[in-house]
Amino acid sequence: MSQLLRVQCFGVSADGFGSGEGQSLETPFGHASPVDLLGWAFGTADWVNRDTPGGTRGLDNYFTRDMTRGIGAEIMGRNKFGPLRGPWENEEWQGWWGDEPPFRTPVFVLTHYEHPSITLSDTTFHFLTATPEEALRVAKEAANGLDVRLGGGVATIREFLDADLVDTLHVSVAPVELGRGERLWTTPDDLLDRFHLDVVPSPSGVTHLLFWRR
Amino acid sequence: MSQLLRVQCFGVSADGFGSGEGQSLETPFGHASPVDLLGWAFGTADWVNRDTPGGTRGLDNYFTRDMTRGIGAEIMGRNKFGPLRGPWENEEWQGWWGDEPPFRTPVFVLTHYEHPSITLSDTTFHFLTATPEEALRVAKEAANGLDVRLGGGVATIREFLDADLVDTLHVSVAPVELGRGERLWTTPDDLLDRFHLDVVPSPSGVTHLLFWRR
Repeated sequence: MSQLLRVQCFGVSADGFGSGEGQSLETPFGHASPVDLLGWAFGTADWVNRDTPGGTRGLDNYFTRDMTRGIGAEIMGRNKFGPLRGPWENEEWQGWWGDEPPFRTPVFVLTHYEHPSITLSDTTFHFLTATPEEALRVAKEAANGLDVRLGGGVATIREFLDADLVDTLHVSVAPVELGRGERLWTTPDDLLDRFHLDVVPSPSGVTHLLFWRR
Repeated sequence: MSQLLRVQCFGVSADGFGSGEGQSLETPFGHASPVDLLGWAFGTADWVNRDTPGGTRGLDNYFTRDMTRGIGAEIMGRNKFGPLRGPWENEEWQGWWGDEPPFRTPVFVLTHYEHPSITLSDTTFHFLTATPEEALRVAKEAANGLDVRLGGGVATIREFLDADLVDTLHVSVAPVELGRGERLWTTPDDLLDRFHLDVVPSPSGVTHLLFWRR
């Protein structure tokens, strides 16, 4: 099996926004509520950040437990890594995820500004100035035969879609409207020329969209 | 996380039969067609018996690729292992699966008749005369911290359900009626006193039922 580039558990609003306007330290999703966009995942048994027993094991849990399965590296944009823009002012920021980031693989952060790697527990963040093609080549090599997760945010996913490098996407659509922010699409139909699509309504109220390459 | 006992990709008809009448060497599911019951799985990219590239990566593939994920052992009834009944006439029968069975773990076959273990490639079949509780204890030990799959058939699943040992069940319901054979239930509602249930219609035409313990 060849290595895939997979988008997993990426949440958008009914009007296609993956993040609201005005990201900051206090509001990683801008004016959008993470619970509105991804609350369906937080209640599942295998959600990557769960630290207590329990949780649901229905449909939604198939998606959260698939997040890490067979993944050997992640690629993310700098705006997923943190709220800072432009040149790094210092090297204090280590991501949103504390001392034990849930990735547990190499993570490649795309940026135009050099930054030394950061190792936190099982995760190492590498900072890369590269085209999508180059970044994917580096990440696949680091993934050691496993798949690569494309973590987001919206601009990064768009860039890799434009370069036709994405093999599968799982996007959850929440029943909220955001009106503004970072928009993944005006309609998911935009992808149907290149992808098959299964539309799967979940009992939790979100709709899971599962795309795979034609 | 404790070890779970999981039923995965177990196919039944709309009227609840997991197998037809008259199992034989030529008809492992009796008068039922395996394609009618499990055809949804055969077309997926990660189906365990797939030996060519391609296949779908939509909803159904989440279920087929979950079949082996995190599984360290299987328990099956003798009627899943083969069409023979009563004392073993000889030791020639090695299961339906050829030289490379798709299990790749220890498999415990429940039987009232002693039989030496069989190793075929990465799979070893052990033959066990045991209560469900004893069989589960042995299988969990062999699974080395991973979950145990309860492979079927119907009688074996019923036995483990009656002993309240099953943690999760994924049952696919095909839009065919069988009328007779081995019946898992008259209605899945029978399990609702002990299990949560997500009902998930698939674009392929089957309905996936996902049960997890209350």
